[in-house]
Amino acid sequence: MRKIRIWDTTLRDGLQVPGVAVTLEDKIEMAKNIRALGVDYMEVGYPAVSEQAFTETRAIVDAIGQDADSPWISVYAQANREELTRAYESIQSARYPMLHLVIGSSRQQMEDRLHKSPEEVLALSRELLEYAKSLTPKVQLTLEDASRAEEEYLLRLVREAVLGGVSIVNISDTVGTAIPEEFGAKIRRIREAVDQINPAVLLSVHCHNDLGMAAANTLSAIRNGEDKAECTVDAIGERAGLAALEEVAVALRFHKEYYQADTEIVTERLNQVSRMISYVTGLTVQVNKPIVGQNAFVHSPGMHQSAENVYAALSAEEVGAHLQDLELNAESGTPEHLKDALRMIGYESATEEEFHGIYEKFRSLIQKKKQVFLHDLYFLLQRGHYVEKEKSVVYVLKTFRVTSSDEFPDASVKLVRGAEIIEEHSYGDGPIDALYTAIKNAVQMDFHLLEYRIASVTGGKEALGRVTVRLEYEGEEYYAHSTDTDTIKASAIALLNGINNIILSRKN
Amino acid sequence: MRKIRIWDTTLRDGLQVPGVAVTLEDKIEMAKNIRALGVDYMEVGYPAVSEQAFTETRAIVDAIGQDADSPWISVYAQANREELTRAYESIQSARYPMLHLVIGSSRQQMEDRLHKSPEEVLALSRELLEYAKSLTPKVQLTLEDASRAEEEYLLRLVREAVLGGVSIVNISDTVGTAIPEEFGAKIRRIREAVDQINPAVLLSVHCHNDLGMAAANTLSAIRNGEDKAECTVDAIGERAGLAALEEVAVALRFHKEYYQADTEIVTERLNQVSRMISYVTGLTVQVNKPIVGQNAFVHSPGMHQSAENVYAALSAEEVGAHLQDLELNAESGTPEHLKDALRMIGYESATEEEFHGIYEKFRSLIQKKKQVFLHDLYFLLQRGHYVEKEKSVVYVLKTFRVTSSDEFPDASVKLVRGAEIIEEHSYGDGPIDALYTAIKNAVQMDFHLLEYRIASVTGGKEALGRVTVRLEYEGEEYYAHSTDTDTIKASAIALLNGINNIILSRKN
Repeated sequence: MRKIRIWDTTLRDGLQVPGVAVTLEDKIEMAKNIRALGVDYMEVGYPAVSEQAFTETRAIVDAIGQDADSPWISVYAQANREELTRAYESIQSARYPMLHLVIGSSRQQMEDRLHKSPEEVLALSRELLEYAKSLTPKVQLTLEDASRAEEEYLLRLVREAVLGGVSIVNISDTVGTAIPEEFGAKIRRIREAVDQINPAVLLSVHCHNDLGMAAANTLSAIRNGEDKAECTVDAIGERAGLAALEEVAVALRFHKEYYQADTEIVTERLNQVSRMISYVTGLTVQVNKPIVGQNAFVHSPGMHQSAENVYAALSAEEVGAHLQDLELNAESGTPEHLKDALRMIGYESATEEEFHGIYEKFRSLIQKKKQVFLHDLYFLLQRGHYVEKEKSVVYVLKTFRVTSSDEFPDASVKLVRGAEIIEEHSYGDGPIDALYTAIKNAVQMDFHLLEYRIASVTGGKEALGRVTVRLEYEGEEYYAHSTDTDTIKASAIALLNGINNIILSRKN
Repeated sequence: MRKIRIWDTTLRDGLQVPGVAVTLEDKIEMAKNIRALGVDYMEVGYPAVSEQAFTETRAIVDAIGQDADSPWISVYAQANREELTRAYESIQSARYPMLHLVIGSSRQQMEDRLHKSPEEVLALSRELLEYAKSLTPKVQLTLEDASRAEEEYLLRLVREAVLGGVSIVNISDTVGTAIPEEFGAKIRRIREAVDQINPAVLLSVHCHNDLGMAAANTLSAIRNGEDKAECTVDAIGERAGLAALEEVAVALRFHKEYYQADTEIVTERLNQVSRMISYVTGLTVQVNKPIVGQNAFVHSPGMHQSAENVYAALSAEEVGAHLQDLELNAESGTPEHLKDALRMIGYESATEEEFHGIYEKFRSLIQKKKQVFLHDLYFLLQRGHYVEKEKSVVYVLKTFRVTSSDEFPDASVKLVRGAEIIEEHSYGDGPIDALYTAIKNAVQMDFHLLEYRIASVTGGKEALGRVTVRLEYEGEEYYAHSTDTDTIKASAIALLNGINNIILSRKN
């Protein structure tokens, strides 16, 4: 049985979703969760894109890439020396660092993006691979848009890379339009070309999901000699995203005899990690999403319940879906049970003092919500986004009162900023309009609210509501969110988080 | 080029999602939208399951199945005479009626569900097909769980059905675990078996999505001789749902040369129909859902924008995704523009008086929301759920005031029921708790709130919020929803809609 390696790129390709902003704290929490899935490689960022991206990448590497059990850690770099250098600097501290060099291989990519001839691209690829290998021995070369590349040329790029000592060649279906049978056949031909030179070089695929075929293309490639698959949890990513890690891992596990291959993914953690990532990104998972959707293991009422097992080939337990029904209430919500539940969602590191704070929040949540589910617990782990030294410049909600009525909605807020206390009152077209006008008047900043979104985090009664706002200020966009059982309060805090993000980014 | 027929079962298999309740009015609107996609067959219900299902099925058939352009109309029936009779009665008025008989074909289905031997199932299938054909000439036989059936036996069932005069044989991957290559090869063998007896019989597949392979299995079957695919819009359905209509239709259109096949789906309508169905079912579509997700054609900021065309193989226009950005505001919101926009979302039938009412609501929405998008318009088309003769028994919200505050949330409501006016006030743990306690005290009914969900319908500022509630009353469950720019008001009306549903269902 062949081992198929999983390269998770949720933190890089996955977070390239327009409108998603995740704090560094949450990225580290995501990274720990993904690592615990048993992935072989993690791509944790694109450090060359900005100073902040560089710093954050380093912090993630420090948090999860140090010990002997660590997966290989990589980052994204486009085809130039500067990005490779920057990439290397960001992952230098990893126990198992690896560089990832990306170069276009289709006519469209070479002409419209790289502005180079095929021969120039070949030379560039050869030169950059050599440079990358001078930095660190393990290097992956991604051939972007390879599924649309002219095959004779693609094979030349592959052979050159293998001769140049590449560790992994990654074939990208960048626009997500490959057809499983054809893509599999192409992978087989590439595998044969690699084998003629160096059978130890791994072959990988990176499949986008524009036609809904990403997981099918990945499996077809595995059947035809691919060794490693690039995935994101919940298939998140730009456009239609990437092959879903959970679909590739579970389909392969289910059919391992057919494929004569399997991954080392701990499938029992898949639902918990999916919930965690959905929570911090604010990206809702469809109820009918395979493996991790809320209904993935729920049968329709009435129709089939007499013989549910007849309709259940997959088991909820194998992918951890059953844990989502675990409930804590006033009686069962003891400190021991809470500790067990926190362990189930992958949170183990609390000191007794931290735990005490979490337990206090938990008791007050149970009083409001009566039933607390496993996925509610992320709410308890939300940390303050602002450190002590920033307390003097950020706004904090001291008290508020918002009236929703069919006639005269109004809002009053009291904000604190350092020693300053500001009170404002306003009317509006609706309660949120009144509230946001009062806050805007209080802070006296000329931002625009581009987007306001609200969603229940949980389905139980007294649901937690999560509010996300997108602001524009002097040409830049800012995102922020907040969660509370009172959606009006969550709305106030989400806007203040956004305003504080503006203030802090301007300060630096 | 072969024509592939699309059998839409969004109204039957699709609406079997736990927790979804759609009014008859909305089902008819869904049916009109799906019909306008150019589907060849529509499965509109499961009439034998209840008296209400029967009445609703008939009403849908009357609304969309009468004229010469109508698709074939079918309904679901399990393997017994009573269900087939009931099915026939429900579709009798259709211009092109067709029966759909479903029988288990795997060992699991025969032993655990049908409690019959393979020979008994063969005899039953033969007898019921004969009975169905005595009712109407066109009959589809679905072989449930066929992908797990013993193939020799499956081929016997198929041959018997073809000899018995079946119009379509439908091969179901009921548990969603088929592998594309294997499934395609099986379809080819079945196609050959059918051809030996009667090449005019159509072969169809019905693929569930538990491993994320439903669309890939469907396309592999098409490549191997399948003539017809069963789908739902957005892949909705129980568990992980069914093959997504939009994925099958668009992948086939995109690769029609490869498959030498195409459907007649009007792909330009796909995004609008997806939004419409998401609106009435309350089922959120993931932003990265292929074809119809909000981000399906949106590139990540910064990364690729210099050469977006390099990354866009599919065009937003071909699947109607570009229309979702169309915006009406105070200046552009003329009656003519509104009429155009309503036509785009498939609403044409308004009388001048109806239109005037819609335009009034539209102007008041524009005042609150500033920008109105195409998908906001469904909100304007929401009709009152209660007819004149029910006005004396249902509760209507007359006025309300809810205060959200960190200290003492409270709520006051005034309800009207016939000539009766009821006022109630309450405190609570939060604003919704206070509001719902006040309403519960006002109506004095002992229901339980099982679930409360809130979601933005739109992403613009002053978003419309949609609230869904699930209630339990005397052992029965009831769903209701409401949408408003004020989520507190939407919460009040959603609960009252649920209470009124209880009252009306008890009255009958």
